[in-house]
Amino acid sequence: MSSEFTVSLRQHIQQLGLNQLVLGLSGGLDSMVLLQLCHQLVLDTDITLKAVYIHHGLSANADQWADFCLQQCLKRSIPFEVQKVQLNPTANIEAQARTARYSALAAFVTTPQTALLTAHHADDQLETLLLALKRGAGPAGLSGIAALQSFAAGWLLRPLLDFSREQLETFAKEQQLEWIEDESNADSRFDRNFLRLQVMPLLQQRWPAFRQNALRSVSHIQQQQQFVETQLEQLLPTVMHGAELDLKLLIAQDLTTQKLLVRRWLALTGLNPSTDWLERFFTELIGAKADAQPLLELDAYRIRRFADKAYITEVTEAPQAGVLLELKPGQQLNTVVGQFLLNSEGKGTALFLTDDPLYLVFGLFSLPFKPAGERQNKALKQWLKLWAIPPWQRLQLPVLVQNNQVVAVLGLASNAAEDQANTYIDWRKG
Amino acid sequence: MSSEFTVSLRQHIQQLGLNQLVLGLSGGLDSMVLLQLCHQLVLDTDITLKAVYIHHGLSANADQWADFCLQQCLKRSIPFEVQKVQLNPTANIEAQARTARYSALAAFVTTPQTALLTAHHADDQLETLLLALKRGAGPAGLSGIAALQSFAAGWLLRPLLDFSREQLETFAKEQQLEWIEDESNADSRFDRNFLRLQVMPLLQQRWPAFRQNALRSVSHIQQQQQFVETQLEQLLPTVMHGAELDLKLLIAQDLTTQKLLVRRWLALTGLNPSTDWLERFFTELIGAKADAQPLLELDAYRIRRFADKAYITEVTEAPQAGVLLELKPGQQLNTVVGQFLLNSEGKGTALFLTDDPLYLVFGLFSLPFKPAGERQNKALKQWLKLWAIPPWQRLQLPVLVQNNQVVAVLGLASNAAEDQANTYIDWRKG
Repeated sequence: MSSEFTVSLRQHIQQLGLNQLVLGLSGGLDSMVLLQLCHQLVLDTDITLKAVYIHHGLSANADQWADFCLQQCLKRSIPFEVQKVQLNPTANIEAQARTARYSALAAFVTTPQTALLTAHHADDQLETLLLALKRGAGPAGLSGIAALQSFAAGWLLRPLLDFSREQLETFAKEQQLEWIEDESNADSRFDRNFLRLQVMPLLQQRWPAFRQNALRSVSHIQQQQQFVETQLEQLLPTVMHGAELDLKLLIAQDLTTQKLLVRRWLALTGLNPSTDWLERFFTELIGAKADAQPLLELDAYRIRRFADKAYITEVTEAPQAGVLLELKPGQQLNTVVGQFLLNSEGKGTALFLTDDPLYLVFGLFSLPFKPAGERQNKALKQWLKLWAIPPWQRLQLPVLVQNNQVVAVLGLASNAAEDQANTYIDWRKG
Repeated sequence: MSSEFTVSLRQHIQQLGLNQLVLGLSGGLDSMVLLQLCHQLVLDTDITLKAVYIHHGLSANADQWADFCLQQCLKRSIPFEVQKVQLNPTANIEAQARTARYSALAAFVTTPQTALLTAHHADDQLETLLLALKRGAGPAGLSGIAALQSFAAGWLLRPLLDFSREQLETFAKEQQLEWIEDESNADSRFDRNFLRLQVMPLLQQRWPAFRQNALRSVSHIQQQQQFVETQLEQLLPTVMHGAELDLKLLIAQDLTTQKLLVRRWLALTGLNPSTDWLERFFTELIGAKADAQPLLELDAYRIRRFADKAYITEVTEAPQAGVLLELKPGQQLNTVVGQFLLNSEGKGTALFLTDDPLYLVFGLFSLPFKPAGERQNKALKQWLKLWAIPPWQRLQLPVLVQNNQVVAVLGLASNAAEDQANTYIDWRKG
């Protein structure tokens, strides 16, 4: 496997222009094989190789393993570091350790010419697939471990992904490598170990080609997933209107495409809904009557429909309706929706004011308003409807009132054009 | 489960406008549950229900099972038929039995208002997924069993796909159904039984939600697959030129898309290449030098590149180069490439002939030719090059020769325009 490995990793190094490899070293068989192969590869080159041991503090033996890794690196004159991470022993330890490990390793990948190398192999890939099925993952999860991906400032490479655990063992014996056995590898309480020790041998014994074939399926899924990503990336903007999803354009697509587009639109905000939630989006939000104001919650967000568009808004503290806050020239007023400063320096929205007290209010939509350039005086609620302001946004609008008459709706309209103004209000959202 | 089943099947019946249900009945638990549910559903309707037993001739008990099915249908006044199929006991029996079964059942689905119903359930779906992984299937195979698909003249419906084997068993006991146990269901030599009896219990015991979650993954894959199909269907014509794949347009796409497009282009001819073969398409066919004439074989087809296009041709018997076949007026001449009939009735390609013997030849590309409307007399090979005829097609072209001069290249050019002709040749490919 040595020459196959070398050819493939050299190709990556050349294509990505790498000059530094950072190896995540645990001292186990897999990473010792990777260390040895990388050591051989960089010997006659300008590429620097460095190994990092992540100390999870989980095993009583961790210090001893760190020391073993140090000795192995000294023997090969490879720079070595130990990085400690903190874990909370009550929560999902496997997932937590993984997250902490990668975030600690990211600190070593500080240039585009640096790649982190991990020792994941074909058996890991297959276990990942079965674990993805176990939790009902979508195609991204089923795609499993990537052979190459961007990571921190540089790259993350898994150069052993095409080799089986068995091939790694053979190489380790041939090269008379030393490694340590992590006692937790035999612990079936961990899902991965259960698969490795109980499920895979059963499948592999009946179908010797199972691993090899199933990995071909994984690469089909990866390919499919990449294609879908590319296509959705091009398609999504065509059904969006600003940040909103245009439901009329959306439903012109076939149903499957609609579902994938909604998922992707939500993903822009970091949201990943369940299948059931997605069904509700279609029945309760899209399927609602035209005059309804449907609302769905998802994590810390509200998803609503208004005038054939879907909006995502954060669940934020709303200003209290009707409260009057007096605004005085030169005094900054801080509220939930932002800072206000009345001035005569021409900063902000143009206003024409009398000497009467000026109030900042929220709500009070029945007050009359005659925006500059408009002929009619109408209740504020009629203007908001005319301007197609979604109902849930209305209470967030700062309204200026003087003498029971609206002077301005900040961000939308005021009672004076620039050449009629005698005062200004500078509003900074936040 | 009865009401859930009824609601869902009624919806399908209404949406598809069905008036006849054909049930594949084996007498086993699954299909007896389906029989009972369908029986209850059609009782007060105009929908006719019919049951068909497929007699594979594999089990010594098959006659007895057929009789059991008959009795069960008689009890419920449901029309019943036995259909025998022939199998070859040496080849893959499971796959063969499936193909034979569906083709026998197709004979009962003769109108768009008819649906075949089979009793596949959630456990079958999951076993199908694992078997797809075992053989390294692509997303279409991993998508598993469809709940609804078009079939013969009508439809194929699997109304039990959302229910587990356990739910079916509970229903069967509640309803005091009778069923037969197929002794082959306990035979671990069959892959499905191995999964059902040995693998699934192991997974299900550790992760009680395994089946349910993995089925969610399957439905994600199905959705993904549908989207990909839709997108490729729109994309493929944009990189084709007639029946050929335009390689210049193809390589403007990203690599993943290129691969999926090549797969789909080959699928138009019913071809489904391996991953390795597809790699060769890119390295050997697309990657070949501009003046090379690369050729790949796949099943009974040849895939070649010529002038930036990829061609698929069937491996056919080629005419023997240079053989002279004399053509005489009124006598039909039969060859590998078709039938020829010289006539004066104005049928076919216009020719101007002398009284000298006329020959049909293949090859002989050095003979001179002056096509009607052209000023120059050039060697036939120069014309073929000018007309951009792919080299492998050249030997298939019927050439007419008189006095060592080309008179016509059938399908491409002749020595006479319509108003100069004194003879015609009618050519029927075949």
